[in-house]
Amino acid sequence: MVAKIFSEPVQVANFETDLHGDINLQYLIDTIVQVSEDQSNDLAVGINRVQQAGATWVVIQYDVTIMRLPRANERLEVSTQGSEYTNNFARRNFWARTTDGQLLVSVTSLWVTMDLKTRKMVKINPEMVTPYGSERVHRIGRMQKIQKLPSEEVISTNYPVRFSDIDFNGHVSNTHYIGWMVDTLPFSFLKAHRAVGFSIKFADEVRYGDAVTSRATVLPAETGYDWSVHQILVQEQVSATAQIKWENLE
Amino acid sequence: MVAKIFSEPVQVANFETDLHGDINLQYLIDTIVQVSEDQSNDLAVGINRVQQAGATWVVIQYDVTIMRLPRANERLEVSTQGSEYTNNFARRNFWARTTDGQLLVSVTSLWVTMDLKTRKMVKINPEMVTPYGSERVHRIGRMQKIQKLPSEEVISTNYPVRFSDIDFNGHVSNTHYIGWMVDTLPFSFLKAHRAVGFSIKFADEVRYGDAVTSRATVLPAETGYDWSVHQILVQEQVSATAQIKWENLE
Repeated sequence: MVAKIFSEPVQVANFETDLHGDINLQYLIDTIVQVSEDQSNDLAVGINRVQQAGATWVVIQYDVTIMRLPRANERLEVSTQGSEYTNNFARRNFWARTTDGQLLVSVTSLWVTMDLKTRKMVKINPEMVTPYGSERVHRIGRMQKIQKLPSEEVISTNYPVRFSDIDFNGHVSNTHYIGWMVDTLPFSFLKAHRAVGFSIKFADEVRYGDAVTSRATVLPAETGYDWSVHQILVQEQVSATAQIKWENLE
Repeated sequence: MVAKIFSEPVQVANFETDLHGDINLQYLIDTIVQVSEDQSNDLAVGINRVQQAGATWVVIQYDVTIMRLPRANERLEVSTQGSEYTNNFARRNFWARTTDGQLLVSVTSLWVTMDLKTRKMVKINPEMVTPYGSERVHRIGRMQKIQKLPSEEVISTNYPVRFSDIDFNGHVSNTHYIGWMVDTLPFSFLKAHRAVGFSIKFADEVRYGDAVTSRATVLPAETGYDWSVHQILVQEQVSATAQIKWENLE
């Protein structure tokens, strides 16, 4: 059985774009997550239903491949598919296409379920995944390995955790981490580069009142692309790591 | 002649909402501004065309009345009308309604045009307003007067100006100011209150690299509503002021 693919039309708003007129990476993830939430509600396994059973979905990693970033006012079709799961992990894929079918962005993501009270990982309840047509498998393919942040030449920015960073659960929306990461890079670098892919891995929740430090470095270009490597820290504890692949526009 | 009203359907995304599931005030303004940009493009007087003539629109003030804040996933009809203009000022109205016509939010706003080179205010070119059906008037009605921030018991937060705060013009999107203002208020206050209206007045642009300070105070409730008063400062210079009216949820 092949898992259901759920699609919906999306239009990129001007305010979701950056200096280049490209969607910013935080809104890109916000947009695909919105489509997966719409699918969950459509299948009557929305977040309220899942939380009634005492558990919640937690994303572990997104791997994002960007053929071309969606642009201001562009109309897209965004699709999602909960593809496969094991005892402990579930995989979900996403695609953003132009209205005439050209693939712009593809994403795969890895999820676990967490007990709402203990905040610990629990086995996936099959009732939470079978409505999507997800296939039970023995093993899920590996996600991208994220490069370590070298100790030298690290840029660092501190961000206050804002009320608007918090979602209806009272935690920082994890799409905000990629925003903090990108914004730490120098203006001159961001003006001269455009993201062509990234992987972000989540290690710990960030809460209101936490002091967030975003650390980053740009690695020397080797393959024609520049890579940046990122960490989000709260009191020296790593909350998330990422690497972003950039094309040079100059 | 009555100015044209332009409407379009909008759906509130989860990620645009706060802890209460209400649209946050920054996204509320982002959404209405997007609709007015769509009208401008529809009338072939979009920002590119206006800037070719050497000028750009600059908003001076928004006065916002909120009957009820739009909620996560709610479908709206958002309308806008460039209603009237004088030599120097133009007024634009906005409405957000439920799909069955219930008025949720109404906004009026005051605009000027600025020379792109000198960054100084210039007389409005009638060619920039007549496509909207705007009426030339001798005088435009007054906007709300914004209360002064008292010197005592002021809360203050510093924000880095982020790359993602910047729009395609290289300046901070002014909708971000209301975000900074709200986020300065204490968590306990924001959890216990919901905005029922606000006015925000813009005095100066904020640029990348500026150190932004957001100052606020909550005035003692007199009329059953609480009011907060706000300032955004860059190096002791006021960039924006606002007042927000809140209902107490407790």
